[in-house]
Amino acid sequence: MIPATLIAKKRDAKPLLDEEIRFLVEGYCRGEVADYQMSALAMAICIQKMNQREIATLTDAMVHSGTCLPRCTDRPRVDKHSTGGLGDKVSLILAPLLATLDVDVPMISGRGLGLTGGTLDKLESIHGFQTEMSIEQSSELLKQVGCFMIGANEKIAPADQKLYSLRDVTGSVESVALITASILSKKIAATLDALVLDVKVGSGAFMKTMDDATELANSIIDVGKLSDLPVTVILSDMSQPLGLGVGNAIEVNESVEVLRGEGPREVRDLTIELCADVLVKVNRFENRDSAIAALVDQLDSGAAYERFEQMVSAQGGRLEFPLSLAQSHSVIAPHEGWVESVNCELIGKTIVEMKGGRSRKGDKIDHTVGMEMHLRVGDEVKVGDRIATLYCPPQQLADRLERLTNIISITEKPPQRPPLIVMRVS
Amino acid sequence: MIPATLIAKKRDAKPLLDEEIRFLVEGYCRGEVADYQMSALAMAICIQKMNQREIATLTDAMVHSGTCLPRCTDRPRVDKHSTGGLGDKVSLILAPLLATLDVDVPMISGRGLGLTGGTLDKLESIHGFQTEMSIEQSSELLKQVGCFMIGANEKIAPADQKLYSLRDVTGSVESVALITASILSKKIAATLDALVLDVKVGSGAFMKTMDDATELANSIIDVGKLSDLPVTVILSDMSQPLGLGVGNAIEVNESVEVLRGEGPREVRDLTIELCADVLVKVNRFENRDSAIAALVDQLDSGAAYERFEQMVSAQGGRLEFPLSLAQSHSVIAPHEGWVESVNCELIGKTIVEMKGGRSRKGDKIDHTVGMEMHLRVGDEVKVGDRIATLYCPPQQLADRLERLTNIISITEKPPQRPPLIVMRVS
Repeated sequence: MIPATLIAKKRDAKPLLDEEIRFLVEGYCRGEVADYQMSALAMAICIQKMNQREIATLTDAMVHSGTCLPRCTDRPRVDKHSTGGLGDKVSLILAPLLATLDVDVPMISGRGLGLTGGTLDKLESIHGFQTEMSIEQSSELLKQVGCFMIGANEKIAPADQKLYSLRDVTGSVESVALITASILSKKIAATLDALVLDVKVGSGAFMKTMDDATELANSIIDVGKLSDLPVTVILSDMSQPLGLGVGNAIEVNESVEVLRGEGPREVRDLTIELCADVLVKVNRFENRDSAIAALVDQLDSGAAYERFEQMVSAQGGRLEFPLSLAQSHSVIAPHEGWVESVNCELIGKTIVEMKGGRSRKGDKIDHTVGMEMHLRVGDEVKVGDRIATLYCPPQQLADRLERLTNIISITEKPPQRPPLIVMRVS
Repeated sequence: MIPATLIAKKRDAKPLLDEEIRFLVEGYCRGEVADYQMSALAMAICIQKMNQREIATLTDAMVHSGTCLPRCTDRPRVDKHSTGGLGDKVSLILAPLLATLDVDVPMISGRGLGLTGGTLDKLESIHGFQTEMSIEQSSELLKQVGCFMIGANEKIAPADQKLYSLRDVTGSVESVALITASILSKKIAATLDALVLDVKVGSGAFMKTMDDATELANSIIDVGKLSDLPVTVILSDMSQPLGLGVGNAIEVNESVEVLRGEGPREVRDLTIELCADVLVKVNRFENRDSAIAALVDQLDSGAAYERFEQMVSAQGGRLEFPLSLAQSHSVIAPHEGWVESVNCELIGKTIVEMKGGRSRKGDKIDHTVGMEMHLRVGDEVKVGDRIATLYCPPQQLADRLERLTNIISITEKPPQRPPLIVMRVS
């Protein structure tokens, strides 16, 4: 098989055979298919798409480019994946919460790049927290605590890691086929029994429209089925940040609140919804209602927070909550009315500019900066009200407070509040 | 500007700005835009196309990646380009023929790869013939002889050379935009006043259909106009080899015959047609008829052959024609009827298998092998007639003669003879 011929086949919108896909992925890992060939193929896939069978084979080839995490307890193994959005701290709550209900959550997370934060960066706000771990150490953690949150291991789906960095610099990130294979290969290599996917939709999300979001949701469900990994999907709102806090330490603090039965309603509700779906999927509960009742109880009783403390300790973190933040400054409403929309991009950019995120891979992060929203879409606002609190060292402040008055647009009539859960797909 | 963002723009079928195209080509030459980014861009261009303005800018950026040949006489400078086909030896005749009519023909040619032969390989059948030359040496030749035929100089459109080798291994050769820019950048860098393009159409050509061929023809004419290079295009038949001989030395011999006023009619006719077009374009003649009369005269008087001898001598070649060929073997017709079609692919493959062509870059060539066709589409054939003569060393013969009875398909009713000139575009 000649790489150029196979690339041209996909260029002409023809489906690739299973053995052709495996030849390309295996060749790529061995260095026999060059980066410049894989990037051309990725671009052809981006534009001409792949059918479900092709995506399933691509996923499987990427899984088999490395090793799979071993099953180390008798408990069902579950996980959640989110397509990412501002203030999305659900992972930090969901893993320990699920672990209290006798399922294992082997969570392999990523770092933030661009406007979206990363779970690992948030966790590293906790002094001493270790995110690098061998496969043996992670198995040990799962036995003891029932969950872990670690970074990608170079042995898990290495083809995906290699391909993802290539796509990032060659304009082929936005491909349903490649996103599906990338997400599923890592999750299948984690030896899961079920996955719940949180697809964010709206101005602050990767998927701006319902069409894009449902296309991705259906692709992951269908390919999951072909790959023996049951997936349920929730499409959730990202027209404004999830919860109040956006940043790193500030999101850990908000997660701790929710784990203690407090915190913003929508963070708690979305976490419970996602957990209930996956618990029913692995038959830990007969139906969503009984799962939700149990989840509410684990949060309100403090059991979930206790499990979070166990995990943090086991991963070397110091238990000192709330974490301290940078100096606070108020963003004040310039006129009255109702909050019509939130400028997610401006919030994200501000966090990155204050070094709370990365503009390039490897940038060092200031975990103490962040923003707390005091208003949500549909809230009434009066002149002089606080729109948000900015946590920011004085030298980073400049004219930010003035510019940030634009993070909300104010209307004269009360607008509709967007629903938190936009749609369920399964 | 960020390469990935520009690549994604083309991926989404949006036109690139002039400064974006220049940034990418210049960055590519300087090594700041990587091969894997350029291959992804080439694939996006392949599928999403480019408009005329984009192609003109791409062409210009590739011209300016190197130097242009200097104008060294007062004569108009013209050239021909062919998209390539079996037995296409027109260049060998056209350059000296045009030079006899007081125009300069600075011809930069290529080598054969795959089923298509290359002018340089054919010329190297002539003992001593030099195809490597500095820009200064080539100017000197033009002053003395009025034409030269040399290989690509690394200073002429180096971006095209770099991009072409990349496209070759990444499945993005078949793009009208990229082919247009590749052809025109080299011709513009040769400082031409007019170009005539011979687009081959049919089973033995790169462009199999009239639609593909006219799309390419129109693209080159339109972009030529934007680039101040007048181009005329002839679409010519490639449902069977041009002339009788296919190979290297055998094609030089046939060219010598045509240059002496003899040889196969269709080779002579096509050469005259192409020459007439370009002579009128640079106002050497008032109309095609007077140009054709002069061309016929130059061939029949021996003037064209004399100029060919001057060029061969000036480029170091020994004047010993006809060149000797490998041992000859006859391919015999198995039954009677009329020739309905010719299997160009089988002829091309046979030449490559006998080492008359290359399956990989750098393969060494046996110039003495080849094939001479004795029948053309529409000819009547009787059992025992010679279909073709194969020139081939005995150790290469194997069962070729038997397999080659398939190079023509025979029908019971006389079919239409295909016209040599399929269409003129200007």
